[in-house]
Amino acid sequence: MRFVSAEQVAQLAGVSRSAVSRTFTEGASVAPATREKVLKAAEELGYHVNDLARGVLANQSRLVGVVATKPEIGFRAHLTAALTKALIRRGSIPVLINTGETEEELLAAQKMLIGHRAEATVILSGSPPASFFELAQRNGQPLVVIGRAEPDADRVLAGNAEASREAAEVFVAAGHRRLAVIGSHSATPSIAERENAFVAAAHAAGFDVRIAHGRDSDYDSGIIAARTLFAEGQRPDAIFCANDLLAFGAMDVIRQEFGLTIPEDVALIGFDDVPEAAWLSYSLTTFRQDPAAIAARAVMLLDRRQQNPDEPRACERVIPQLVFRKSFAGS
Amino acid sequence: MRFVSAEQVAQLAGVSRSAVSRTFTEGASVAPATREKVLKAAEELGYHVNDLARGVLANQSRLVGVVATKPEIGFRAHLTAALTKALIRRGSIPVLINTGETEEELLAAQKMLIGHRAEATVILSGSPPASFFELAQRNGQPLVVIGRAEPDADRVLAGNAEASREAAEVFVAAGHRRLAVIGSHSATPSIAERENAFVAAAHAAGFDVRIAHGRDSDYDSGIIAARTLFAEGQRPDAIFCANDLLAFGAMDVIRQEFGLTIPEDVALIGFDDVPEAAWLSYSLTTFRQDPAAIAARAVMLLDRRQQNPDEPRACERVIPQLVFRKSFAGS
Repeated sequence: MRFVSAEQVAQLAGVSRSAVSRTFTEGASVAPATREKVLKAAEELGYHVNDLARGVLANQSRLVGVVATKPEIGFRAHLTAALTKALIRRGSIPVLINTGETEEELLAAQKMLIGHRAEATVILSGSPPASFFELAQRNGQPLVVIGRAEPDADRVLAGNAEASREAAEVFVAAGHRRLAVIGSHSATPSIAERENAFVAAAHAAGFDVRIAHGRDSDYDSGIIAARTLFAEGQRPDAIFCANDLLAFGAMDVIRQEFGLTIPEDVALIGFDDVPEAAWLSYSLTTFRQDPAAIAARAVMLLDRRQQNPDEPRACERVIPQLVFRKSFAGS
Repeated sequence: MRFVSAEQVAQLAGVSRSAVSRTFTEGASVAPATREKVLKAAEELGYHVNDLARGVLANQSRLVGVVATKPEIGFRAHLTAALTKALIRRGSIPVLINTGETEEELLAAQKMLIGHRAEATVILSGSPPASFFELAQRNGQPLVVIGRAEPDADRVLAGNAEASREAAEVFVAAGHRRLAVIGSHSATPSIAERENAFVAAAHAAGFDVRIAHGRDSDYDSGIIAARTLFAEGQRPDAIFCANDLLAFGAMDVIRQEFGLTIPEDVALIGFDDVPEAAWLSYSLTTFRQDPAAIAARAVMLLDRRQQNPDEPRACERVIPQLVFRKSFAGS
């Protein structure tokens, strides 16, 4: 590495090293003629102030960690993109730590971020161990957790319970009686919360719910879960899927393997409103989560925490809206 | 910010500041008893060495910029994820600059990365201006461009021309005569290269090609392009789509708006093999690009460039493989 240095600029401009430094320091005093010489030399050489070194001296690295597992999958891809965009707009430098979900991997990611003096960390997935939160706290590093009711961090929640209750209510209001829910064996807190709230609301309305789980919470898991629902037992007439990917797999199996029609034989509601939900092959009624709104709240929480480090932990909610398409028309 | 400092560790351990520094410097000499005291105090306080400061001193920030536009869309989401994972495995810190595609935005991203002394930049999309490459070169910063024949940088290319020629050949070999291609008005270099190579190969085989463009290269653009192909003129019996998203939109329109069957009435081949291509609703025959293989080559080029800054620019090719599914069975 041989980044252009302030010394090189000083030499070319025929000024002192300190004149270069003052030219690039806001509010510092430098003669207009000197300043002009420095800017011209800097432009010619392709010099840029070493923001990193300034950040180290000022203890403000501007780096913000974004910790995510499988950031390419489903809604998480959209959330990761919205968050990195919002961070750049804020003047931060987003560091994307694409890591596994084990406690060891998450802790290693956080150690790397602390080592690089990341000003804050935003966690999009996984269940970090207590030591993760302790490490941040001891180093005065703000944490924001998205989609998880983590009491030791500021958090943005997706209104999972409210939306999932609404799913049960609109199914029942439309006359559906044979309800089912598709969740996941490896349930993230969000997926589990959606499943549980749907079941509880159905029970409260006096209806039973068949529960099916795929191994994960992706398309293939939706296929497996739908097969178990339709291969035996009472056939459901309305299925709430804990995310859109599960719903797409279920819809394909329902139509292509069991020859049923959607929504006449079976109605479905998903969760997330990823772009594929609007594709003609699916036209999925689903709860829309707005990635930009969630990212904006996360950034707001970071700002607030940096200004007031000792305030009580805060929780922001972004309530999803039910978007009606063909898979369930409502009542 | 109040990261735990080496001074605090020294105080708690009852040793000198220098003893703390030596404990955390590989190969430095420190008495075993002192070392043990330091490690215990560091653990207790949650102290981590300031890797950022060390990086500044050593002129090795470990930061690597990943510049991408819409990193949440289609194949780019998978490439971004694979690349950030490969960089972390390499010991780098991936900085994801999610930015627009204008020259100004790309140049601003690069200035930010140079300012933070990013050791290298990988460009996944957009057409950076010449000043982008000059800035990197003057600062001795390695650049890797993916999917673009950029002579001023090391690059990883996707074998667009080879694959697209193959698409024309397999269509012709299977007896298709009414060929069409779906590209994009806002063609990236990759999309344009695929379209052009397909048309050239078809012409070479003695066949005409109808060309349709959506505004962009996404699902909605595939819908628009397919409508123009089927609303008037000679109906194609085989369509090559410059990426999978375009193919999904086209397939939905072909079936749902024109009542045609795939592959009996129209065969399709896509490009990328994103996971949706294997979904039962699409079952798209397509060219598989391997994001992990492309990421591995990009990292290899970075390693090589850092070791040998003055070698000629290198070009790595990752040739996509045609994966047969139901949308085109071959001959």
